[in-house]
Amino acid sequence: MYQHKTMDPQEAARLHEMRHTFSHLLAAAVQELRPEVKLGIGPAIDDGFYYDFLTDQPFSLSDLKDIERRMRKLAQAKHDLAPSSMGVAEAKALLAQRGEVLKVELVEDLAAQGETEVSFYGLGGFLDLCKGPHVANTKDLPLKAFKLDRVAGAYWRGDEKRPMLSRIYGLAFLTPEDLAAYIEQREEAERRDHRRLGRDMDLFVISPDVGKGLPMFTEKGTTIRRALERFIVDEEIKRGYLHVQTPILGRKHLYEISGHWEHYQDSMYPPINVDGEDYVLRPMTCPHHFMLYAARPRSYRELPVRYAEISPMYRKEKSGELSGLIRVMGFHLADAHIFCKPEDVKPVFREVVDLIGYVMETLGLAERCWYRLSLRDDHKEKYIDAPESWAMAERDMRDICEEMKLEAQVEPGHAAFYGPKLDVQMATVGGREETLFTNQIDIALAQRFHLEYIAEDGSRRMPWVVHRSSIGCLERTIAFLVEHYAGALPLWLMPVQVKVLPITDEQTAYAAQVKDQLERLGLRVELDDRKETLNRKVREAKMQKIPYLCVVGQREQQEGSVSVTNRDTDRKSTLPVAQFADAVLKEHVTRSRQLRAAGAA
Amino acid sequence: MYQHKTMDPQEAARLHEMRHTFSHLLAAAVQELRPEVKLGIGPAIDDGFYYDFLTDQPFSLSDLKDIERRMRKLAQAKHDLAPSSMGVAEAKALLAQRGEVLKVELVEDLAAQGETEVSFYGLGGFLDLCKGPHVANTKDLPLKAFKLDRVAGAYWRGDEKRPMLSRIYGLAFLTPEDLAAYIEQREEAERRDHRRLGRDMDLFVISPDVGKGLPMFTEKGTTIRRALERFIVDEEIKRGYLHVQTPILGRKHLYEISGHWEHYQDSMYPPINVDGEDYVLRPMTCPHHFMLYAARPRSYRELPVRYAEISPMYRKEKSGELSGLIRVMGFHLADAHIFCKPEDVKPVFREVVDLIGYVMETLGLAERCWYRLSLRDDHKEKYIDAPESWAMAERDMRDICEEMKLEAQVEPGHAAFYGPKLDVQMATVGGREETLFTNQIDIALAQRFHLEYIAEDGSRRMPWVVHRSSIGCLERTIAFLVEHYAGALPLWLMPVQVKVLPITDEQTAYAAQVKDQLERLGLRVELDDRKETLNRKVREAKMQKIPYLCVVGQREQQEGSVSVTNRDTDRKSTLPVAQFADAVLKEHVTRSRQLRAAGAA
Repeated sequence: MYQHKTMDPQEAARLHEMRHTFSHLLAAAVQELRPEVKLGIGPAIDDGFYYDFLTDQPFSLSDLKDIERRMRKLAQAKHDLAPSSMGVAEAKALLAQRGEVLKVELVEDLAAQGETEVSFYGLGGFLDLCKGPHVANTKDLPLKAFKLDRVAGAYWRGDEKRPMLSRIYGLAFLTPEDLAAYIEQREEAERRDHRRLGRDMDLFVISPDVGKGLPMFTEKGTTIRRALERFIVDEEIKRGYLHVQTPILGRKHLYEISGHWEHYQDSMYPPINVDGEDYVLRPMTCPHHFMLYAARPRSYRELPVRYAEISPMYRKEKSGELSGLIRVMGFHLADAHIFCKPEDVKPVFREVVDLIGYVMETLGLAERCWYRLSLRDDHKEKYIDAPESWAMAERDMRDICEEMKLEAQVEPGHAAFYGPKLDVQMATVGGREETLFTNQIDIALAQRFHLEYIAEDGSRRMPWVVHRSSIGCLERTIAFLVEHYAGALPLWLMPVQVKVLPITDEQTAYAAQVKDQLERLGLRVELDDRKETLNRKVREAKMQKIPYLCVVGQREQQEGSVSVTNRDTDRKSTLPVAQFADAVLKEHVTRSRQLRAAGAA
Repeated sequence: MYQHKTMDPQEAARLHEMRHTFSHLLAAAVQELRPEVKLGIGPAIDDGFYYDFLTDQPFSLSDLKDIERRMRKLAQAKHDLAPSSMGVAEAKALLAQRGEVLKVELVEDLAAQGETEVSFYGLGGFLDLCKGPHVANTKDLPLKAFKLDRVAGAYWRGDEKRPMLSRIYGLAFLTPEDLAAYIEQREEAERRDHRRLGRDMDLFVISPDVGKGLPMFTEKGTTIRRALERFIVDEEIKRGYLHVQTPILGRKHLYEISGHWEHYQDSMYPPINVDGEDYVLRPMTCPHHFMLYAARPRSYRELPVRYAEISPMYRKEKSGELSGLIRVMGFHLADAHIFCKPEDVKPVFREVVDLIGYVMETLGLAERCWYRLSLRDDHKEKYIDAPESWAMAERDMRDICEEMKLEAQVEPGHAAFYGPKLDVQMATVGGREETLFTNQIDIALAQRFHLEYIAEDGSRRMPWVVHRSSIGCLERTIAFLVEHYAGALPLWLMPVQVKVLPITDEQTAYAAQVKDQLERLGLRVELDDRKETLNRKVREAKMQKIPYLCVVGQREQQEGSVSVTNRDTDRKSTLPVAQFADAVLKEHVTRSRQLRAAGAA
């Protein structure tokens, strides 16, 4: 899989200082151009900086040009950024005198928190309440690596009852190349955004009447889901998983036993009371699978028991953040719980990693993914108190990473309270890091549910549980695949694999025959016999990313052939229908990521 | 499909009278044997009658023998059952004098309802407050066709705050043959009960910690579900359905539009409030499919649009009635909504009936099923006021039944408020009639959701919607299949299709090879190499209803053959592995209901 690179910490600190200084420079420029504006706050952020301003006249995009020009001029004047400090009373008086009502409020808050001194940074005539750090002098700013970006509204202190401020965002990087690369990546990410492609390709619909976080999959989106689902279910069954189906509801009591009600309630929807009993929409599958395991006595002979499910679950997201297929109210996780003897956890986990590798490779996502090994940190109170089991589980996890050469990024402090995790991380097309799913060794939960097995010596022992996924949440995985492939998914995942276009009405019957011949093999084919021009039909099919476009005219009909355009190479070739059909079928059943049946490069 | 027979109404009335008289006879006998007992009520029921008694000493099964003997003696005394009537005050005094406290309460209630006279029926020295009707004389009772059956506790007037009475149940039919047939059918139904077989065959688990109405499917039960689900999804797609996936939650608002919140709230679970917005677990799929239809403009050219889904939904059942796979909180319906021009509803509905016929035939349920045509009755206020559309829809539905020779049982008064229904009815193994699912023409709901299409003349028109299923609810259908086949499901539905049993350890490797060879074809095979006797393994495999049992010994290994026992014929044959594998595969992919690959009759 992917080798993950992180930035050198020193470089990261320097970049942060620069971005912070750019935000002061922005505020200084705005103050010169619009002295009546009041200052809010201005931090460095992931791709640059922003500053919030209180003004009756929000900034327009054309204002940004003037402001940026003024920023450059100010920077070229080589101002120092030296800190000074002041007693809070004095600071308040100074800011009040300058009319900075918002800053006065900040100082008052600091005073209320017990601060007696506050620090300022100057920049020419500009002075800002600020803790730093900054670059020493504006001449240290990489003026070719920054750019004002956009404006937005933002409530003062994020509170919708306070005034709306006008926020200016800027981009800033270490080098002009980094800036250009970032802008290009962002444009590419917008072009690949699954919400946009989902609409263009008719994959899902979000209806405000149904609910914003409740996407509905159309027949095309559902075809992708079904392909993924059948692939993973069949593969897991082959590998010894027992696929089960358990309900999305459970008694609240079940989550009290598991500890979710205590530790995870903020991510759960409120219970539904039925005849005096509280039920909840499950946020996890574990308790259901645990109860299946507990339904009968278990012997060491039948371990490991691997329960898997395409598991529907609901987790609370902030309503303001619901969007597309990634921020949703409910989703379907390819989930599993493997019950094993503690001493068998290594081979069990190795199987898990092997399956993940196979799946990521099949989907073509391996190049974007890496492992993160999440261990305990020094805050021992955050974790179950079982030092021996912890040591064993963490050592096992490290051994697996080493033996399988996973080059996992080690992150102390990210472990679950019940054991270490091996997370599958992904770089999105926008460059963000996302956790695709997590795999855990659970040394503790079995006890809460009194799970056990009869060991060889007849004693009752507690199993360990490996919680894992193989393909993540279907909804998210589809979103990431659509973005990764910019919609041009591998053939086996495409809702329509072949489109047949007759040149004139006279070939419609032949085109229907071709469609039929391909469909009988289980391929997904559409015939476009609308009364539109061929050009328009071709254009539309290209927008839908159809892998193979078969144009059939008089010659093809006479020969029993098809003239096929390959989506990925844009090349054409003409070949007998049967030969084409066989080749496409082979790509379909082998889940090939390359289109070679016709028009190959 | 099945030809449904109902009882002649005159005969049914006569049976009802007899049963009611038997209940008086029972009370009369009890009063003679235990004069201190107070009378509750004693109606005729579906398979006989019961009577409730207030007593400190509940009846035991051995009491029933004495009581039954006394009943026969009383009946042979040829008592008349003549009604008499009395003013309520007089009746109350009479019953109070006899110490019948419960009966006094009944008279008081009748008086409170405005009755001034009440009627009594005598039977020798026994007198009961009763409206009748009864047989004229106890000599008219078929004494060889009745039997006291069982005792149970029942709260007076069904109220758990009132005293617990002792209830005696009796069976009564027109002829001794009917009684014997009923008892046999009941025993058979118990033997076939899916709750019992579900446990024996390890198909599902009900855990009190998860919730009584929330069955969890084990890997074996899930295999059956998956086989059914893939069968119906693939078949529907072949027939032009667009399979979609929509969420189980929706804003309450959506059900206010549809009218479910007003008309169907009693069957819905209470809403979940999230950030001020109410969401409900859907009881129906219609609103979601309607919003998918409404997501873009529709032309007459693309109609009919057929949205289908294996749709999860939740409907409220009384918690006391939750049981097995039939009375559950949530289920998965093979649901669809077909949007069509009103003038096209006949061919659309015909397609629906054709699919149902195919499915019922494939499942082998056709012999148990029949159609019920549910139309309006005279209570016009129960239905949407659209006389022309109603007339058209009902005429279309009648035409379809006639043209397709469905011999549907016509039932006025069972229509939905928005249109006529064609229900698929089933006779359970217990002889009960159940609605497997319903198919409806909906002439009204499209309007509530402002659904429309652009007609050929450019005008906007309202489509009709056909609501239909093809295979019903997966949970219920599995329960009915298990009961119908007494667990011995057709091969394609069996969780384990072939079991391989090596005679000694020396054949284990060969047995594994055989398993592997069959599994590579996609068949579901188990190898039983436990250290148990062959006899025990065979016995267990038979309990699990495994279609083919392959015993392999030294001879089979040398020949490359298997000795197969056929589950249905119990016959054996020995044949080459490859030949057996091909034959089983053929039965699997053709969904054959007969086992002929080996040991055929």
